[in-house]
Amino acid sequence: MLILIIAEAALETIPKELWSYHSIRKHALLKGKKAGEILLDRGYHHSAMIKLDNAEKRGRPDLIHISLLEATSTPLYIEGRLEIYVHTITDKVIRVGQLVRLPRAYYRFEGLMEKLFVKGKINSKGSNLLELSDLSFKQLISKIRPTITIGLSTIGEKNTFEEVAKELAKYVKPALVVGGFPRGHFSKAVTSSLNALYSIHELALQAHVVIARMIYEYEKAIYK
Amino acid sequence: MLILIIAEAALETIPKELWSYHSIRKHALLKGKKAGEILLDRGYHHSAMIKLDNAEKRGRPDLIHISLLEATSTPLYIEGRLEIYVHTITDKVIRVGQLVRLPRAYYRFEGLMEKLFVKGKINSKGSNLLELSDLSFKQLISKIRPTITIGLSTIGEKNTFEEVAKELAKYVKPALVVGGFPRGHFSKAVTSSLNALYSIHELALQAHVVIARMIYEYEKAIYK
Repeated sequence: MLILIIAEAALETIPKELWSYHSIRKHALLKGKKAGEILLDRGYHHSAMIKLDNAEKRGRPDLIHISLLEATSTPLYIEGRLEIYVHTITDKVIRVGQLVRLPRAYYRFEGLMEKLFVKGKINSKGSNLLELSDLSFKQLISKIRPTITIGLSTIGEKNTFEEVAKELAKYVKPALVVGGFPRGHFSKAVTSSLNALYSIHELALQAHVVIARMIYEYEKAIYK
Repeated sequence: MLILIIAEAALETIPKELWSYHSIRKHALLKGKKAGEILLDRGYHHSAMIKLDNAEKRGRPDLIHISLLEATSTPLYIEGRLEIYVHTITDKVIRVGQLVRLPRAYYRFEGLMEKLFVKGKINSKGSNLLELSDLSFKQLISKIRPTITIGLSTIGEKNTFEEVAKELAKYVKPALVVGGFPRGHFSKAVTSSLNALYSIHELALQAHVVIARMIYEYEKAIYK
């Protein structure tokens, strides 16, 4: 069982400090929702986001959508051997259940996430598809207790997808941590909970590309 | 240089035989476009699509969006060593230029494709980002003239991502053909132009997963 954690993900509802902005109020009115029930999205809220802390790491729910589609389309997940968590930049954690079929259309994913942030969980036939908790990255790690926790970052120690996968495969319950933000690096709050930090490419690859490749190499490592 | 061809892709504008349907006319009115200038999308046009030939293979532009995002986010493409073509189910071919940054938001991709189907090309600063032609799969192969053309399908000969990548890497101008449809198999018009047809997994993997893994293994094969 591999645990995938998408950390400091650029997925959150519009934070309180932006609710009074004219552009935000207009968007909320248009959607017929409260500002606090709408996903923060750079595509719509760019100008209002400028004064936000860590603005460059936030408001990209589309990145999380494609990363989750990538992860949940792999044989590893389909065969029930991949556990997925999204830790967000504002210290919420979404646990993705087993065999969840996420909406492929972005607007449906958006609606689902907005519902999750309001209700705290999404059920279907008695099982939790998605569950939201208030947890910091450190608290999440304390809760899951992986046997090893490996993060990937361009500022990590040089390595390859293949070798990192082989290392993960040595452990019973390994966790792989990938950044869920468009630019920047993990905060210290994340790196301090990692056992190792590796760089697997000289280019800053997008989260979905890293996830696709690491899961593939992990499958090769465990099925060999 | 690897050539990626997404074949018989479920990407087309609403075909003439559906224009008179009430639901289609309503959708066109809502979008303020002619029916023939809107992408066929099972999400909206499911009921009208029922009587369409090959309906199960059509109307999934979202699949092509995620497949193209996957391909264009790889180091191989970023380094100018991947040429991408989308051959559609209605025998149109889209040539994706070098270093094109496709919209990540689906609704923007949709708008771009609708514009491409009307105008025939999308330019930026004098270079063609996207170019549309009327070509069958066979005509496309005659035009590109790959040194080898390998297709992937669950009904092909058993093989692995790694071995197929090594075979592709032996040639100067190899073409990899992946189906761009949600279910079903290549038509004879496609398979008759292939040099080999391999199955690389017992599961019917989605096009974007296959593309991510094959490009990754091809990179490994050529950079070793």
